[in-house]
Amino acid sequence: MKEIKGGVTAPRGFLASGVKAGIKKSGRKDLALIFSETAAVAAAAFTTNRFQASPVKISKAHIAHKTHRAIIVNSGNANCANGKVGDRDAVSMAVAAAQALGVEKRAVLVASTGIIGHYLPIGNIHKAIPLLVKTLAQDGGSSFAESIMTTDTKKKECAVSCAIGGVAVRIGGSCKGVGMIYPEMRLERHATMLSFLTTDAAITKRMLEKALSEAIVDSFNMVSVDGDMSTNDSCFIMANGCAGNRLIKDTGNDYAVFTAALTKVTAKLAKMIAYDGEGATKLIEIEVVGAKAARDARTVARKISTSNLFKACVYGGDPNWGRVAAACGAAGVAFDPERTDIYLGGIKVMSSGQSVKEYDKKKARAHFLSGNISVKVDLKAGHARAKAWTCDLSKEYVAINSVYST
Amino acid sequence: MKEIKGGVTAPRGFLASGVKAGIKKSGRKDLALIFSETAAVAAAAFTTNRFQASPVKISKAHIAHKTHRAIIVNSGNANCANGKVGDRDAVSMAVAAAQALGVEKRAVLVASTGIIGHYLPIGNIHKAIPLLVKTLAQDGGSSFAESIMTTDTKKKECAVSCAIGGVAVRIGGSCKGVGMIYPEMRLERHATMLSFLTTDAAITKRMLEKALSEAIVDSFNMVSVDGDMSTNDSCFIMANGCAGNRLIKDTGNDYAVFTAALTKVTAKLAKMIAYDGEGATKLIEIEVVGAKAARDARTVARKISTSNLFKACVYGGDPNWGRVAAACGAAGVAFDPERTDIYLGGIKVMSSGQSVKEYDKKKARAHFLSGNISVKVDLKAGHARAKAWTCDLSKEYVAINSVYST
Repeated sequence: MKEIKGGVTAPRGFLASGVKAGIKKSGRKDLALIFSETAAVAAAAFTTNRFQASPVKISKAHIAHKTHRAIIVNSGNANCANGKVGDRDAVSMAVAAAQALGVEKRAVLVASTGIIGHYLPIGNIHKAIPLLVKTLAQDGGSSFAESIMTTDTKKKECAVSCAIGGVAVRIGGSCKGVGMIYPEMRLERHATMLSFLTTDAAITKRMLEKALSEAIVDSFNMVSVDGDMSTNDSCFIMANGCAGNRLIKDTGNDYAVFTAALTKVTAKLAKMIAYDGEGATKLIEIEVVGAKAARDARTVARKISTSNLFKACVYGGDPNWGRVAAACGAAGVAFDPERTDIYLGGIKVMSSGQSVKEYDKKKARAHFLSGNISVKVDLKAGHARAKAWTCDLSKEYVAINSVYST
Repeated sequence: MKEIKGGVTAPRGFLASGVKAGIKKSGRKDLALIFSETAAVAAAAFTTNRFQASPVKISKAHIAHKTHRAIIVNSGNANCANGKVGDRDAVSMAVAAAQALGVEKRAVLVASTGIIGHYLPIGNIHKAIPLLVKTLAQDGGSSFAESIMTTDTKKKECAVSCAIGGVAVRIGGSCKGVGMIYPEMRLERHATMLSFLTTDAAITKRMLEKALSEAIVDSFNMVSVDGDMSTNDSCFIMANGCAGNRLIKDTGNDYAVFTAALTKVTAKLAKMIAYDGEGATKLIEIEVVGAKAARDARTVARKISTSNLFKACVYGGDPNWGRVAAACGAAGVAFDPERTDIYLGGIKVMSSGQSVKEYDKKKARAHFLSGNISVKVDLKAGHARAKAWTCDLSKEYVAINSVYST
C-alpha cells in the first residue's frame, strides 16, 4: 500500500467538479459533484441523530438502488428542519443532477452542510448544475474538496494505492467538517462531517458496505471537535471496478487488503478533520490500551476527546493530566483506577492510579507546547485498544461559533 | 415555605467557620468546618467517576456511622490520585478535626477540592485546625461558604424555612464549583461540586437519605458547566433535630413538605453554580416537556446543556436554535422529530420539526442578549418534564482553564 496524489478523482473512472452557485454569502464555491463514468456500487453511513436533514433521508432511500453514478453536494446550507419543502428540494437536487448527467434519479446521492432551518436556494442550484456537469474533470478532485468546505480552513483529500491479486487498485477520499463534529454513523442509518470516498476496485455492494462499516468505526467515528453530533453527517463510497482486479466478493485476503487500505484513507481524513477543527491550534491523539474490549477502549478514548477541561489545558500548553484521569473515570466503563497508567507524550505521569512525583515536567510542558499532543491511557485490564482524535479548545473556537448564523 | 437569610448555619444548632491554612497559593481561606452541637443523622451522595478522590473514599466509609457531628473541607487541593498517602491524609484530616472537637473520628466527614495529583499539605491543615475550631460560630456560614471556593467568583448559600406539624424547620445549604461541573451523584456511591446542607429537622437517617436522593436528581444532577465530571463531587446533609418537630420517619405529608423544601434549596444552589460557571456571562435554563418518561426528559435536557456549539452561540447572543435541535437528536432518546417544538425565551422557533419562518427574530435576539436564557423543547410524546441549567461557553472559560495548574 502506498500513498498517491489526489483525492476523489485519484481512482480511475471518476470525474469531479465544484462551482459557485450562490448558496454561501461569502461567494465561495458551494456546489460539488462526483461522477463515475461507469456504474458503481455504493455504500453509505449516516448520522444517528434523531433529527435528520432532508438530504440524509433522500440518500438513505437512494442508497438501496443497485448501482450509482453520482453524488451532488452543497455547502452553506444543511437543508435540515425544513419539513416537506426540504425533502422536495433534496429530491430536486438529485433529479436535476440526474437529468443533466443522463442517469437514473436513484443513481444519484445527495448531501448538504451548513446552517439548519433555512430553505435551500434551490433555484440557484438548478441554475448552477449545467456548469457543474460541464466542468467535470479527471483533475476535479481538488475543486470538489474546495466546494464542500464550510468553516474548514484547509481542503481535505488523500488517496492510496494497493495491490489486489497483482492488480493496482486506488482509493481516494475527500471530506469536510471542523465544527459540530462528533460523528456516530451507522450504515444506512446515520454523520456535519461529510465524507466522500471513491475506488476503482471491483467489489460487490455487500462487501463494500462491510468494508465501509469496518473502516469508519476506527476513523470517522473516533474523531471529535466539539462533541456535537450533526444532523447531516454522511459518508459515501462508490466503487466502479475500473481497476480490473478480480472481484472482491467475500471476506478473504483481497477483502482484508482492501479494507486496510480504505481504513488508511478514512483514518487520515479523520485526523485532517481534528487538525483543522474550529479554532484548533493542536492535534490531540488519544490512545487507550489494555482494555477488556475494543468497545471499552473506544468509549474511554472518545470521553477524553470530548473533555473541555482537557482540551482547554492543551490550548494553554499545560500538561494537566488530572483532567485526563477525571474524563477517563467518567466514561461509564468498568476498570480498576488503581491499576491505570497515564502517559503524556510518552512520559508516564500517573502510575497505577497515583501521580508520578518525579516525572520530567519540563519535557511534558515542551510536549504540550508542540502541535501534536499524544495521550496514552493503559487500563491494564486486557488487550483491546483504540485511538481517538480531537483538537484543543481555543478562544477562537468560541469566537467562530458565537457569530455563526448572524 | 419561605426563604430565610444565611446558609449552613441558618438551621438551629449548627456552627461553622473558615480559615486560611496555606493550601491555596493565593493565600485565601481554604479550610472550612461545619459542626452540629448535637448528634445529627447524615446522608451523602458521591461522584460516580471511577477515579475517586481519597476524601470521597473516607467519607463513604464514615457515612455508614449512625450519627455525625462535623464536616471538614479544604479547597485548593483535590487529594486525588495520591494513592495511600492521599488516603492517610484524608483520614488524618478527619481524625485531627475529631480530636479538636472531642467527637468520634467516624462522626466526621471530609471533602476536598482543587488540583488533582498533588499531595495535601497536611501539616498546614493540622496547624490550622485549632483556629478553625475556636472560630466556630452561629454566623460562621458565610465564612464557610467563602473558604470552600476555588475558581468561584461568588459565595453560594441559601436557606429556607417550612412548617412541619406546625413547627418551623429550617434547611440551609452552601456549595462551590464552577468548573469540572457535570455531577452524576448517587447516594453512597458518588460529585468537584461540593455541596453542604444542614437542617434542624428531626428525621430518620433513612428518610434523610431518601429525601437527599430525590432532591439531587432534579437539581445538582441537572447542572453542567463543562460536561466534565469530577473525581471529588460530594453532597452532604446533616439533620440534628433541634427544631423539635415530630420525627419524620416515613414518606407521609411531613416527608413531602421537607423534601419539597430541600429540593428548593438544592435547585437554588444548582442554579447558582451554573450562573457562576467559569467564564459565564449568562445563565441558561433548559426545560424539556412532553417526554414519555422523566428519564428521557432529563437525558435530552442534559444533552442540550452540554452542547458547546449551543453554549457558544448563547455567548455571542445568536439565537441559533438549529444547535438545540441537533443536540436534542443526539441524546440517544427515542422521540419523533417531526412532532418536536422548540421555544427560545417563549418564542416558538421550530414547530413539529420544521423551522418557523415568521418568528420574531428581533425579540429572539433581544432575549439572547439578556442574562437569563430560556430554552424549551416539547417532544409531544407524553407528560414527563425536566429542567437543566448551564451557562454560556465564553473565551474567558478557555482562558481560565488553559492556565490552571501552572
